[in-house]
Amino acid sequence: MREVAVIGVGMTRFGRYEDKSSIEHGVEVTQAALKDAGLGWKEVQIAYCGAAQQGMTPATRVLAGLGTTGIPFINVENASASGSTAFREAYLAVATGLYDIALALGVGKMGRAFALASSPEPAEFNLMKTMGSLQPASFFAMRMRRRMKEYGTSIDSLARVSVKNHRHAVYNPYAQYPKEVTLEEVHRARMICDPVTVLHLCPTGDGGAAAILCSKEKAEKYGARPLITVAASAFRTQVYSSKRHPSPDVTTVTAKEAYEQVGCGPWDMDLVQVHEAATVEEIDNYELLGFCNPGEGERLIDDGVTQIGGRIPFNTDGGLLARGHPIGPTGLAQIWETVMQLRGEAGQRQVEGARIGMAHMIGYEGVCIIHILKKRL
Amino acid sequence: MREVAVIGVGMTRFGRYEDKSSIEHGVEVTQAALKDAGLGWKEVQIAYCGAAQQGMTPATRVLAGLGTTGIPFINVENASASGSTAFREAYLAVATGLYDIALALGVGKMGRAFALASSPEPAEFNLMKTMGSLQPASFFAMRMRRRMKEYGTSIDSLARVSVKNHRHAVYNPYAQYPKEVTLEEVHRARMICDPVTVLHLCPTGDGGAAAILCSKEKAEKYGARPLITVAASAFRTQVYSSKRHPSPDVTTVTAKEAYEQVGCGPWDMDLVQVHEAATVEEIDNYELLGFCNPGEGERLIDDGVTQIGGRIPFNTDGGLLARGHPIGPTGLAQIWETVMQLRGEAGQRQVEGARIGMAHMIGYEGVCIIHILKKRL
Repeated sequence: MREVAVIGVGMTRFGRYEDKSSIEHGVEVTQAALKDAGLGWKEVQIAYCGAAQQGMTPATRVLAGLGTTGIPFINVENASASGSTAFREAYLAVATGLYDIALALGVGKMGRAFALASSPEPAEFNLMKTMGSLQPASFFAMRMRRRMKEYGTSIDSLARVSVKNHRHAVYNPYAQYPKEVTLEEVHRARMICDPVTVLHLCPTGDGGAAAILCSKEKAEKYGARPLITVAASAFRTQVYSSKRHPSPDVTTVTAKEAYEQVGCGPWDMDLVQVHEAATVEEIDNYELLGFCNPGEGERLIDDGVTQIGGRIPFNTDGGLLARGHPIGPTGLAQIWETVMQLRGEAGQRQVEGARIGMAHMIGYEGVCIIHILKKRL
Repeated sequence: MREVAVIGVGMTRFGRYEDKSSIEHGVEVTQAALKDAGLGWKEVQIAYCGAAQQGMTPATRVLAGLGTTGIPFINVENASASGSTAFREAYLAVATGLYDIALALGVGKMGRAFALASSPEPAEFNLMKTMGSLQPASFFAMRMRRRMKEYGTSIDSLARVSVKNHRHAVYNPYAQYPKEVTLEEVHRARMICDPVTVLHLCPTGDGGAAAILCSKEKAEKYGARPLITVAASAFRTQVYSSKRHPSPDVTTVTAKEAYEQVGCGPWDMDLVQVHEAATVEEIDNYELLGFCNPGEGERLIDDGVTQIGGRIPFNTDGGLLARGHPIGPTGLAQIWETVMQLRGEAGQRQVEGARIGMAHMIGYEGVCIIHILKKRL
């Protein structure tokens, strides 16, 4: 396994594009990533495209838009972790020495009715089904209620995640909702499923994101910019015991593997992007990723530890809640943000002196993928 | 890159299963492949699942049915080449030394209305769209007409492909239509789009197929059976010129790469499985794979060269036309057949002394994947 660098990233602003297909987003972000890397399309040797429910062969249709060059194109899907899967597979393609330059791409276009319920055959262990509910809002309502009961977490702490991430999004030109919201606004927003108001949940949307990966040796030729390398790539799926109780949580297991690959711990991170389809998920993830003990997560949000300027900023680009979550590209938007931060090109949302950052995604039904990127000095 | 062996295969009989999901097919064929390999499920370290239009995360849902072990599961899709893509990625995962034992899985379940038209955004170069037609039958009708005009190919020669492949299927317990048909029956079958009768086209169906791949060193431990290794894995996409004329054809380019990997030519093969969604495609593929010059393909079918007992048997299991083509698993059904033949376990359809076999799949819009498997002596 050889070292791999991320030499170019590109993305579209997530949102609703009535007249633009997911394929057009894919072409646009690939061209942006190539421009960012200073490469031509013909130099790319293999491509992985993450997309969920975008019809057959989205990758091949993006290829047609870019100009056919004969390279292998592989469509990958792991629900919300589809973009992260594309990044992981592209990373392996280069790390193993088979290819020098790989494209990881993610595209998504969601109708307003798009929901996890679009999966026609949920597995038996699917909690949402077991509880007679197939909508994310009701699933997260139960999860919020449970956390409030178990740990006494207040609705204010939960709402603060939305306030924080919307504030972060204000400084991200690619965020879907770059608009500050107050605690009162989160509480009084349209109620979806008590206590989940619309501002506790991520929106649906459209968009694309891409990254160009390259062997470290080749990347060093480009010189001028700080070199960003992939320090860890961990991919696990949830193990269920005979009682189907998810323990330990897949995020904890995957994070442990990622930290071991780097030889570090959670507090060595300078910034973290996590999957927070609902506010409660971000607080849970503070704990599952090892930043504090179970039941202590709300302290990190209450004390401002996870906002930009705090000790360990989470979701510096606005996260799923405010940057948006078009499924396919989301994991690559996290890579985009991490690369921007490590390069020192994140503008008003810059985390001072950022040198190492983590990106964490969860896919429907127990997929977890974590990448750690590092600035080489 | 290290050598990789195929140590287990499994499949379901392709057909229509009203009460069985694609996920159930996936669980069944994985268990069959594990049994065939003499392995337990817990020994598998990574899995790739090929599926098209089966909802989100089919792989994770199969995993739930097999028992969660925490391994990475990646859903891949390349239309008809989805199963071949899963095999290719699993092969790379082992060849590069990252994993010792990988599962390649393919599942599919198609409604009667399932057609290539299910792709919502065909690329502009899509011939079918350009011609104002989105149905496979009318596409292949034009292709048959063109071949008949350009080379004087007779409708009898075309129909003989269906007669041959149905005859082969009679001896395959997993074929969807194991029933001999006469030339007259092909001609007089229900007309779909003149001159394409229903017996010139592959059926829709459901099913699954799986293969277990393993490093050659590990595989040698199992001993008793002949060792089947992956001698070539080639994957290319169609290049279009500025006039969007596909030349050279992607099958020719991919086959050239595969032959180079083995250091052989087409006539060194003992048997070949090719993509023949319609009869004309098999004859075209005789030429595109280098077995004869353009316009000479019909001689191979007319003279019985490509039937079992002939010099180079094609689609010994019945092919897409008679074994069936549920999209996701088809490429792995080809691997199943090739392994059975190389092991000498193909019963009444056995190709005598088979030592090397090729499997070729095309995915919608220009994906071509070719694997060559070899029996090690």
